[in-house]
Amino acid sequence: MSANPGPGSTSSGERLRPRRIGIDTGGEHVAYLRKDSPACHGEGFGPHSRLQVGVGDRRLMATLAIVQGDALAPDEVGLSESAWLRLAPAAHEEVTLTHPPSVESLSSVRAKLYGRTLAGTEVRAIVADIAAQRYSNVEMAAFIAACSNDHLGLDEVVALTGAMVDSGARLQWPGAVIVDKHCVGGLPGNRTTPIVVAICTALGLTMPKTSSRAITSPAGTADTMAMLAPVELDLEHMRRTVERTGGCIVWGGAINLASVDDTLIRIERALDIDSPGQLVASILSKKIAAGATRVVIDIPVGPTAKVREPRHARTLERMLRSVAARFGLGVTVLRTDGLQPVGRGVGPALEAHDVLAVLRNLPSQPLDLRERALALAAAVIEAGTTTSDGALASARECLDSGRAWRQFQAICEAQGGLRTPGVAPYRQPVASTRAGRVDAIDNRRLAQAAKLAGAPLSPLAGLTVDVRPGDAVRVGQPLFTLHAQSPGELAYAMEYVSRHPDIVRLGIDP
Amino acid sequence: MSANPGPGSTSSGERLRPRRIGIDTGGEHVAYLRKDSPACHGEGFGPHSRLQVGVGDRRLMATLAIVQGDALAPDEVGLSESAWLRLAPAAHEEVTLTHPPSVESLSSVRAKLYGRTLAGTEVRAIVADIAAQRYSNVEMAAFIAACSNDHLGLDEVVALTGAMVDSGARLQWPGAVIVDKHCVGGLPGNRTTPIVVAICTALGLTMPKTSSRAITSPAGTADTMAMLAPVELDLEHMRRTVERTGGCIVWGGAINLASVDDTLIRIERALDIDSPGQLVASILSKKIAAGATRVVIDIPVGPTAKVREPRHARTLERMLRSVAARFGLGVTVLRTDGLQPVGRGVGPALEAHDVLAVLRNLPSQPLDLRERALALAAAVIEAGTTTSDGALASARECLDSGRAWRQFQAICEAQGGLRTPGVAPYRQPVASTRAGRVDAIDNRRLAQAAKLAGAPLSPLAGLTVDVRPGDAVRVGQPLFTLHAQSPGELAYAMEYVSRHPDIVRLGIDP
Repeated sequence: MSANPGPGSTSSGERLRPRRIGIDTGGEHVAYLRKDSPACHGEGFGPHSRLQVGVGDRRLMATLAIVQGDALAPDEVGLSESAWLRLAPAAHEEVTLTHPPSVESLSSVRAKLYGRTLAGTEVRAIVADIAAQRYSNVEMAAFIAACSNDHLGLDEVVALTGAMVDSGARLQWPGAVIVDKHCVGGLPGNRTTPIVVAICTALGLTMPKTSSRAITSPAGTADTMAMLAPVELDLEHMRRTVERTGGCIVWGGAINLASVDDTLIRIERALDIDSPGQLVASILSKKIAAGATRVVIDIPVGPTAKVREPRHARTLERMLRSVAARFGLGVTVLRTDGLQPVGRGVGPALEAHDVLAVLRNLPSQPLDLRERALALAAAVIEAGTTTSDGALASARECLDSGRAWRQFQAICEAQGGLRTPGVAPYRQPVASTRAGRVDAIDNRRLAQAAKLAGAPLSPLAGLTVDVRPGDAVRVGQPLFTLHAQSPGELAYAMEYVSRHPDIVRLGIDP
Repeated sequence: MSANPGPGSTSSGERLRPRRIGIDTGGEHVAYLRKDSPACHGEGFGPHSRLQVGVGDRRLMATLAIVQGDALAPDEVGLSESAWLRLAPAAHEEVTLTHPPSVESLSSVRAKLYGRTLAGTEVRAIVADIAAQRYSNVEMAAFIAACSNDHLGLDEVVALTGAMVDSGARLQWPGAVIVDKHCVGGLPGNRTTPIVVAICTALGLTMPKTSSRAITSPAGTADTMAMLAPVELDLEHMRRTVERTGGCIVWGGAINLASVDDTLIRIERALDIDSPGQLVASILSKKIAAGATRVVIDIPVGPTAKVREPRHARTLERMLRSVAARFGLGVTVLRTDGLQPVGRGVGPALEAHDVLAVLRNLPSQPLDLRERALALAAAVIEAGTTTSDGALASARECLDSGRAWRQFQAICEAQGGLRTPGVAPYRQPVASTRAGRVDAIDNRRLAQAAKLAGAPLSPLAGLTVDVRPGDAVRVGQPLFTLHAQSPGELAYAMEYVSRHPDIVRLGIDP
């Protein structure tokens, strides 16, 4: 009886031909094998196994899925889109599958679940492993669960914030004072950022603003801004824009700030777990990485906003201040009304029209958006300058005089040219079937109707809100108007609206 | 401007053509859509979205994955293997995708993370939602994290146990006393079950035993038993076997006992989170569902066993007793030596040979397996009868006299016929390169070598251990022998063994 290992078996693990599967698994790398693959068999891999996938000297950790039938050959390994792009196998390059090295920091996650306070080195090791994509989704869920509620102490939040800053790029700007703003959990239409940046930079402050695209909402600030100017700037172009104008409003996704934060947010959102510690680390790490020194944080409080009760806002505020202080970051917190949508438009272009109307002082401008932007601009001015007198008056004068509008045009030019947002070709007013006074607007369903109409992927789509709470309404008067880029999408949103007649709720007749 | 919804849009959600993707995602249903699919667009679905998939009046909840390229048509939805089998779309049947109803019990999971004690109704609602596959993997991970360590109180463990029993089938047997045994976290080769069942049923007890297949080990009890008789019996066949012989040793997977337990174990294993509460609920729910009234639980304690320290065994034992008492279930706990493998064979057929050798009193029988089986059988006899005297002697007499062997043959006949396990065609002894005394055997790596040789999928594969700790060894003497069904698998295991020369660790020369 003899068994000379052949030449193919001198390395560890199985060698297989890679195949691009084209599935975007939303962050977690996945490797696909046939059930009768020698790797499943030999290495004892099964569904959910974690394995190390190697091509040349590139390595990553993936979760295994088993493929039935003939979609793969027995000697093939399928790679999810993220794994394929990361490993980038050349023609004829083979893939090695091995048992992954154990992820030591998971023992700290377990210790945290058992109630132990983690040392800074442990928190940094966890974040480094998440940054290197060594955690599966269920492992990240366990980490998020371990940090939920008030389980993170101040030192742990500080360590988490610092580690998240270190997980991505970090920007530096000339000048000692760099201002920024952030809104915790958006209301539909709350697009103050372009207005605030225009006012504050017109008044001489430096405000290099990075924003996000919508994930679950009808529009993010970056989606709205993209209707007015290019936002996918590389770092060099962003830097030129800020040098020339003192500010910018760009998509942060192109710059890779605090990248672990995006990974964690994805799972947090799926779990809907509140954690002040992680929220604080998330907000502050992005701001520190963006190079800010003074930040104004807007916390809308209301039943459909992210922060639902004043006492939660107070807890959050205390922790924001304490952690920011440890990084030498100045923080001003504004608690604002989170009860109703802001402005009239919901959707990228429709919100951009609101922004333009305020900046250009048009008679049609939504006054609530204008006043919110002015209050935030005043807070940023106070945070960024030594004189705290007359900040609101300065902001108002800057907007009224057209100075903010000229400054906004300059920023847009520097970003690549001012654009004029279009208007959707298909519009349908939704009329009231009875008379009454507007009691409340269901923000969640309103946003859903805007998304069904096509926002944000169809950028002209969404809706405009035609009434406000307290308004008296006649039979047949439009309550809101759907905007769509195709008849099918309009029909789709209309069908939803017809099933939910109470998106705008009317009280007794006036 | 008009927008009459067409006939296709009168129902809620998108209608798409189903396509079988053939991917086994290990439990979580997955739906696949192209990025430009109208459903992604219209409903605002993205990677990780949870959605409700409907065909006719069948519904399930799935997690979305996005497919790049042309693997799917824009109006197609791919279904993972579990989703396809569950929904079973007929030709021309369309699939509807909608936002799923919110899973109310997730708020109880969050409350548990925040430290609240859950009411029985809340625990039952969680288990019912998991049973209906309404939880995603990350949501189950959060639940497991919330229950980890000692976070579950006695009443919560009782509620969890009861809810898990209710999640699957429940067996009933004639007679007031039904005995069973369970081993917490196996050692390689620890195949006492067939011997214990043969002895106890030969002595008149009723012992309808359900066992599991290997998940991460080289063989489960059901894999080993399958080498000796059919084990995939339906409930009716199992019942006939027990009526005729008083016992059986079948695969529990065919009977669907406490099905939620299997779902949770999959995620617990991925997380490697210890939770006495969940372990107790897992063990006891399966036994209660199987109809047992008296259970003997074997807890091997050792550095490579599931329970590593005596104090953990004591905690577990206390909780097992308290919870079992609430269900009127009698529990005997045996703490056993978990330091070294049991018997000689590792792998389905090789372990079956050990079992046969003990039952037939062959000179080659491994005495450690024999003594462990006798001790467990004695504990079962004591648990199942009123006289506690002489149980060990009775068990020994039953085995020595050949009565247990005749009873085992009867059980195998009733299950479909006794089988003779074969011998693997390729065998390779691994010889010692030096002289010395055996200090220790690395159970984990030994199991890994057996799996690389092909166990359990190649049922004749695995290895036999030729030495025990304390044995004196000469140069060239075999330490263990690899068994394989193909030269490739043998080479594969040999390669691993050559990289790990310390699987059997030798001390100084004797």
